[in-house]
Amino acid sequence: MAETLQIPDEDAAWLAPHLPSNSAIQSAGNLNRPFVTLTFATSLDSSLSLAPGVRTRLSGPESKAMTHHLRRRHDAILVGVGTVLADDPGLNCRIAGAGLDAQPRPIVLDPRGRWDFTRHSKVFEVARAGKGLAPLVLVGATAAVDPEKQAVLEAHGGKFVVLDARDAQLRFNWPSILSVLYAEGIHSVMVEGGGQVINSLLNPDSQQLVDTVIVTVAPTWLGRGGVVVSPDPVHAPDGTPVPAARLADAAWHQFGEDIVLCGKLSREN
Amino acid sequence: MAETLQIPDEDAAWLAPHLPSNSAIQSAGNLNRPFVTLTFATSLDSSLSLAPGVRTRLSGPESKAMTHHLRRRHDAILVGVGTVLADDPGLNCRIAGAGLDAQPRPIVLDPRGRWDFTRHSKVFEVARAGKGLAPLVLVGATAAVDPEKQAVLEAHGGKFVVLDARDAQLRFNWPSILSVLYAEGIHSVMVEGGGQVINSLLNPDSQQLVDTVIVTVAPTWLGRGGVVVSPDPVHAPDGTPVPAARLADAAWHQFGEDIVLCGKLSREN
Repeated sequence: MAETLQIPDEDAAWLAPHLPSNSAIQSAGNLNRPFVTLTFATSLDSSLSLAPGVRTRLSGPESKAMTHHLRRRHDAILVGVGTVLADDPGLNCRIAGAGLDAQPRPIVLDPRGRWDFTRHSKVFEVARAGKGLAPLVLVGATAAVDPEKQAVLEAHGGKFVVLDARDAQLRFNWPSILSVLYAEGIHSVMVEGGGQVINSLLNPDSQQLVDTVIVTVAPTWLGRGGVVVSPDPVHAPDGTPVPAARLADAAWHQFGEDIVLCGKLSREN
Repeated sequence: MAETLQIPDEDAAWLAPHLPSNSAIQSAGNLNRPFVTLTFATSLDSSLSLAPGVRTRLSGPESKAMTHHLRRRHDAILVGVGTVLADDPGLNCRIAGAGLDAQPRPIVLDPRGRWDFTRHSKVFEVARAGKGLAPLVLVGATAAVDPEKQAVLEAHGGKFVVLDARDAQLRFNWPSILSVLYAEGIHSVMVEGGGQVINSLLNPDSQQLVDTVIVTVAPTWLGRGGVVVSPDPVHAPDGTPVPAARLADAAWHQFGEDIVLCGKLSREN
């Protein structure tokens, strides 16, 4: 069976101040949205994977365990459909002793209804084994909802949520996505990938919606041609380029061979 | 005048095992080349600067002081001509109390003779002030050497070194470059940039020439369009992409807001 994971107490203590606190969740709730943690692992050359659709083992076991520790502390984990198509992920928390009540709700952002899942997709296998929850699948108003897929989803306790927007508007319309999640009772969400999802949240328009950023960097260069995390360029009014995003209160901690960085977005323009 | 810099004893102690030791310098010397440290600072999205030719303040004062500490521990520092044209750098060590005998020799890699320096270029101002050495300028056999430039260079104690290779072969022919430096009495060299120089050393053909890598990462995303550190993609014999470069014995240490990573290149193919 799948392994279970643990993180040392010292590492958990280091992470604690970067997790959604009750007061931070309440502050986000006052804005009608969940607390948002943006988290991902890259190479030194900022790649998530060697090429689009290629599953890439990047971070070591210690930072992988950290990711699962973080999943336990959020109501939901969100990924784009590209990640689901590439990796067929379980989208659950595999920390030792995590019961079903500790499982985050998987959210799959699939505006155009591209995810052709069946009951054999890993997330449903996991749900049937009592080790995770079935996903909410966010689709656009114009995506055709297949009745068979709907039956699979609902039989496992998941559902389609139709976003009230056209595809073109929907793509990374984060205020709309987050208010829908909040209406579904989700008070904290960990956004995990893939590249387009992450880059869209790092763009100036979305930065104020992100409460915490947690980045793992592995001591590897994947080389050019990978799926790269790098936001759109930002320019000052006179046209000169300026940094697109900066983390304030940066704190770094080594997990195995990797480094983990926590901080808050603060654009310096 | 220019500031002087210091690093705390604790940081110096952490760096010590990653600096060129006498035995490591001797091992490199047995191969007829200097000990090579590759060092640079990037953003989280692996950019050295916001755009080609745009000087970008990236790392904080603590990791800048670290760079100057490293310069003191090497016979020479090497940069590509692009960096010199973009930044007009002083290329000296500004650690408090560093006398002229502690100054590294600047090496400018300029195969096509593009550097149009005068006595007012910063590196010569620094040399005249007794705060640094004049550079060795490595040019290709086909680059025309201007007598006026030669006079400026030699008046400050520097010189042109003509590499015995055509331009096309010369460009990042590292074995040839390093053996020329060794013949000039340089037993340790710190390669600092720019992007093309760094990427060429991270490529599989050159990795065995690099003894230590020291990377500073600032908690900033510069955004797309920057000068990116990322080596050429590497593929397994069956055509699948594999990581281009990996650091073994990775050690990370926080300097101010930035992280510094030390390790040795070990490609996992």
